[in-house]
Amino acid sequence: LTCCSAQSFRELCDRTKNTNVRLSLPAVCIVWQTAMIILFGVFIRYNEESDTHWVEYRKENNLSDIQNDFYFRYPSFQDVHVMIFVGFGFLMTFLQRYSFGAVGFNFLIAAFGLQWALLMQGWFHSLDYTDGKIKIGVENLINADFCVAGCLIAYGAVLGKVSPVQLLVLTLFGITLFAVEEYIILDLIHAKDAGGSMVIHTFGGYYGLSISWMLYRPNLDQSNRLQSSVYHSDVFAMIGTLFLWMFWPSFNSAITDHGDGQHRAAINTYLALASTVLTTVAVSSLFQKHGKLDMVHIQNSTLAGGVAVGTAAEFMLMPYGSLIVGFCCGIISTLGYIFLTPFMEKYLKIQDTCGIHNLHAMPGVIGGIVGAITAAAATESVYGAEGLRNTFDFEGEFADRSTSKQGGHQAAGLCVAICFGVGGGILVGFILRLPIWGDPADDNCFNDEPYWEHQRIPENVKPTTEECQNQQPSLSLHGQTTKMIALSQSM
Amino acid sequence: LTCCSAQSFRELCDRTKNTNVRLSLPAVCIVWQTAMIILFGVFIRYNEESDTHWVEYRKENNLSDIQNDFYFRYPSFQDVHVMIFVGFGFLMTFLQRYSFGAVGFNFLIAAFGLQWALLMQGWFHSLDYTDGKIKIGVENLINADFCVAGCLIAYGAVLGKVSPVQLLVLTLFGITLFAVEEYIILDLIHAKDAGGSMVIHTFGGYYGLSISWMLYRPNLDQSNRLQSSVYHSDVFAMIGTLFLWMFWPSFNSAITDHGDGQHRAAINTYLALASTVLTTVAVSSLFQKHGKLDMVHIQNSTLAGGVAVGTAAEFMLMPYGSLIVGFCCGIISTLGYIFLTPFMEKYLKIQDTCGIHNLHAMPGVIGGIVGAITAAAATESVYGAEGLRNTFDFEGEFADRSTSKQGGHQAAGLCVAICFGVGGGILVGFILRLPIWGDPADDNCFNDEPYWEHQRIPENVKPTTEECQNQQPSLSLHGQTTKMIALSQSM
Amino acid sequence: LTCCSAQSFRELCDRTKNTNVRLSLPAVCIVWQTAMIILFGVFIRYNEESDTHWVEYRKENNLSDIQNDFYFRYPSFQDVHVMIFVGFGFLMTFLQRYSFGAVGFNFLIAAFGLQWALLMQGWFHSLDYTDGKIKIGVENLINADFCVAGCLIAYGAVLGKVSPVQLLVLTLFGITLFAVEEYIILDLIHAKDAGGSMVIHTFGGYYGLSISWMLYRPNLDQSNRLQSSVYHSDVFAMIGTLFLWMFWPSFNSAITDHGDGQHRAAINTYLALASTVLTTVAVSSLFQKHGKLDMVHIQNSTLAGGVAVGTAAEFMLMPYGSLIVGFCCGIISTLGYIFLTPFMEKYLKIQDTCGIHNLHAMPGVIGGIVGAITAAAATESVYGAEGLRNTFDFEGEFADRSTSKQGGHQAAGLCVAICFGVGGGILVGFILRLPIWGDPADDNCFNDEPYWEHQRIPENVKPTTEECQNQQPSLSLHGQTTKMIALSQSM
Repeated sequence: LTCCSAQSFRELCDRTKNTNVRLSLPAVCIVWQTAMIILFGVFIRYNEESDTHWVEYRKENNLSDIQNDFYFRYPSFQDVHVMIFVGFGFLMTFLQRYSFGAVGFNFLIAAFGLQWALLMQGWFHSLDYTDGKIKIGVENLINADFCVAGCLIAYGAVLGKVSPVQLLVLTLFGITLFAVEEYIILDLIHAKDAGGSMVIHTFGGYYGLSISWMLYRPNLDQSNRLQSSVYHSDVFAMIGTLFLWMFWPSFNSAITDHGDGQHRAAINTYLALASTVLTTVAVSSLFQKHGKLDMVHIQNSTLAGGVAVGTAAEFMLMPYGSLIVGFCCGIISTLGYIFLTPFMEKYLKIQDTCGIHNLHAMPGVIGGIVGAITAAAATESVYGAEGLRNTFDFEGEFADRSTSKQGGHQAAGLCVAICFGVGGGILVGFILRLPIWGDPADDNCFNDEPYWEHQRIPENVKPTTEECQNQQPSLSLHGQTTKMIALSQSM
Repeated sequence: LTCCSAQSFRELCDRTKNTNVRLSLPAVCIVWQTAMIILFGVFIRYNEESDTHWVEYRKENNLSDIQNDFYFRYPSFQDVHVMIFVGFGFLMTFLQRYSFGAVGFNFLIAAFGLQWALLMQGWFHSLDYTDGKIKIGVENLINADFCVAGCLIAYGAVLGKVSPVQLLVLTLFGITLFAVEEYIILDLIHAKDAGGSMVIHTFGGYYGLSISWMLYRPNLDQSNRLQSSVYHSDVFAMIGTLFLWMFWPSFNSAITDHGDGQHRAAINTYLALASTVLTTVAVSSLFQKHGKLDMVHIQNSTLAGGVAVGTAAEFMLMPYGSLIVGFCCGIISTLGYIFLTPFMEKYLKIQDTCGIHNLHAMPGVIGGIVGAITAAAATESVYGAEGLRNTFDFEGEFADRSTSKQGGHQAAGLCVAICFGVGGGILVGFILRLPIWGDPADDNCFNDEPYWEHQRIPENVKPTTEECQNQQPSLSLHGQTTKMIALSQSM
Repeated sequence: LTCCSAQSFRELCDRTKNTNVRLSLPAVCIVWQTAMIILFGVFIRYNEESDTHWVEYRKENNLSDIQNDFYFRYPSFQDVHVMIFVGFGFLMTFLQRYSFGAVGFNFLIAAFGLQWALLMQGWFHSLDYTDGKIKIGVENLINADFCVAGCLIAYGAVLGKVSPVQLLVLTLFGITLFAVEEYIILDLIHAKDAGGSMVIHTFGGYYGLSISWMLYRPNLDQSNRLQSSVYHSDVFAMIGTLFLWMFWPSFNSAITDHGDGQHRAAINTYLALASTVLTTVAVSSLFQKHGKLDMVHIQNSTLAGGVAVGTAAEFMLMPYGSLIVGFCCGIISTLGYIFLTPFMEKYLKIQDTCGIHNLHAMPGVIGGIVGAITAAAATESVYGAEGLRNTFDFEGEFADRSTSKQGGHQAAGLCVAICFGVGGGILVGFILRLPIWGDPADDNCFNDEPYWEHQRIPENVKPTTEECQNQQPSLSLHGQTTKMIALSQSM
């Protein structure tokens, strides 16, 4: 059913491709932001730790100011914040002509998404039933950033092929689906997922891949001259890679338990990521002519270990366990880039610009499985009675849950994440096929010029002294000029 | 009076434009740095929290090591530090040929400014009258960075038009004026300004604009081919934008009260900035042909919300209040870039390279007004008796000040900031017009080549194997083409 | 002896230069990573602060969660982590055609090195003799990053002249030597070295220089057209410089005593670095034609103050003392770049690509001397009885050591660092001369193309609409070609 309707839609779309978003983009931004203000006015307030009444709360509970949750989590929050805006943003600048679109649209949808996430997650997790208000603190900000991450992952799959309006719609639905899925997995199923291997990466990955499948472009090869990187755009992308890689321990430990929980999650992630780098380099070199390394692998697969250790990071995974997880993910993710991505594009009609299937979807699933196994294998002898209870929150209605049962629930959580990702992606992809969103034609993809003013060189160009010294002689010939223009333009 | 004398100066200047700073720059650096060493030797010592006697102090006051102010403020300090050096530095790299000047001179004046700021602010705020020494800790470092920010803002207005020596002079006077103005506003008037909307941004903005007005260059269009960006220089600038945007919550919360004060300031700033992004995008798209986004707006106006929420960030502004502030500032700032900046250049003879009027001056004034209103509207029912006292420091001589009175004093503080900015800028601009500073001629602005060694491509340029493969045909043409290809390739 | 054998080796090498690492690189990565997993499995466990038993430990010792070492050190750890991967990585991207190699290989060897460092340092410092396990926490992660820094410094000397396999060998031995040297200096000699002036910078510097001397390439001038930077590669390098500069206070304070120790170390480093910037600019301008600044100096010498204050940062160096140290190092380091580096290359056969002798080796030695003097000059009147004991750890077997004696031991530590650096470097250089490592020929240095896939511009290059608008006319007439050159130049 979806397919044939998709077919009919395609014809509808291809008739007219107008990338002018002069009305739709401002309208969506203003209306949605206004809605945010109203909803925040109705629902959102400070919690007891960010409210001026903290001073009384502190005394009642005999706490010091330093025990305000702010000091436990703010440094991690800022690291996560950097990952969301610089990490994801710059990771996607590798395309020679889509850096504005990568950083700029990432900036836009993240800024909208975190507001909507505060509301959606607030209703599910932070609603104060005494006054019907959502009480927020630093932990809510972190969770909002996490929620946004799911949508940014999805953006990676459709990078260069969609309009900013489509991205905002993708984000609106993505955040909504995320909050529901997260509530089911963490609260109803009571699965643990500190680093979001399932909740964030598996969901986000399959959400993006399904959308990309729905938006399949048969003639995308028309713009494939722009689907490559240039030397310096790959260096820009490394900025994103490194900030994601370095701060991933903060990502996986940001909302874990105070004390040993955060401490252990950071160590496990640090180790898993280190191990991933070596296996990524190994596989990348092994499958290239002359053993040359491919920047695509170094930029992406080196991060797979952080994804895959997300769920189990706060468990007693043990340092060597983290290394093993990273070891495997580096290999699997790089092989994915070499074999799976081309296969998916050719046979499954899934065009995955950034290869999120190799960086998020697959490692996310591995992370969910690792989490289930680690949870099922947890014993009181290793964790200690109290440690076990704290780590898995075996309290209240879950007080008498066994670790093996917990393992099963972890696996169930993984399935929920996949279902929401695929189902939600197909639904949203269906909506995004409507011919009203201003997405570019097939021969104009991977070029952000339709959505961004590009500086023109003014007419009265005079070379500087330095330029003259270098170039004077060359003024006498043409011929190769177009190639040079293409080259210099492509910078 | 100023104008006609300015006229006479102009003729004086234009006669000779010598950008050779080989004597003046080293002389100023060495002499001023030596002066810093002497003054630090006479005045500056560690405070009780950074001195080895802390161990005794800690026991006397029954504190734990973690309650050392270092742990309350150091993470925020490092974020602010990044904003000063990477944020401001890279934000100004957007010009196609002034990236060295932007990052390098920003680096230089910030490094000098923070030392001078430690002294100036120390004399006013941290002087220990028992021994006449300034006792410094992490909070002094943060305030020094804040103080420097005012001068870096001013640099934005004159970017590409001044010499490093002029920038050092601008900084010396700027820091001095800042310290005095800050003392009047915070201590005498007892206005609150956690994020420095008034003290930093309003002052810095008008200080820079007045200097730019005094240094008006009628023939600047001669170098306007370099006053534009190129694709990758805009991407570099986004590094600055994003680090400013991400760490602004740390900026506004760095020196607020321990506990809820820092917590609330961070939340308010986080929200205001998110809201600004959407309205900036909306207005930018609405006023461009085909609704294309302008990088200038995305790079700058998205930050206006952080400026405007600075003063009120630690008050009970409420989450929706922060969103509203950000909403308005995104619109106003972007409109400023579209309409005000060209108007000011054409009719007011104010050439504002980075548009600091739209990013700092206007939002700063808005922030001051928002702060005054929020303070005047503060009630004990919302803040709680003790919370109100803590938030506004109604202690000692100010114990019985009413919130409405506080609102008036906030407004008074804003006026002081504007006066110091305009007055100081005119004074310093007058000094900077002296024909001794080595500033560039009108046709040589926005090009850092007069002050920075630029790498030349050596004569014996041979294309690499790779270049050959790509460029085979071109090798058949005259020797010089290969050089051009090598050039473009080398990008 | 070494020399003549080196001679024989050289002939051996130059016969065949095969840069194909398709077998050696993957083999080394997989085998070594597997070894890490096994060794971690046998030896490495969580310490009591990152283990789930923390909850019991905490109660026994009547601690709050916030007193977990994680909250004392994690923010500094993340700053150090950024310095290692972004700081060192991007600092080396200045070469026009070696950015992939700089960031990518830095990433690879750091990721391997930190694992090996956790083991080596663990055996010496964190071995729990009750069960023969190494117990790790956040402080171990910081020390592992420190350990890696030594090898990254060495990489700076051979940048562009070695293969990734050689770098991994350099790292394996470098980490091993580091751990032994560190144990001798810190534990046996009981010298203090918080910021690692001796342990990290002096050792790493001389280690790299000796290797570079062993790997001397007489015909390196054949590839010197690529040994220069281009405009935007220097801007990339400034990212590295600034993150190193900004976070150096965290580097020097990361493992100092809780409370005043970390607080004071951060202040001293902050001041030393600020002072260095001004003297670097002064000397750079003074020795250039027309007083132009040289990016090489700004990128490197501005950091020398952080190196030189490393050892004494936690002592009562006094703010003015820090400024003096920075003042001298800025001058010495910049003069080193102007006079020493060319001299060393010409007469000592030491080719130092990044000038680590000026940035690490010399300032490191200065730092060791400053540390010795400051320690010898320490008095109870300044430090306080308990403060003195804490600062120098005069406990246990060292309880009755005098400060003058400590000064002597500091000097002894410096000598050990130099010996290990030079000796180890010669040994490892000898190994790296073997003709099996896939290093490039003399005419192919400073070009990462032998080890990295470079994107090719597809054959069907057609200028985009925008390009047409800008450039169409230029295809016909000469005058316009300058426009293209202006374009490529402007990159």
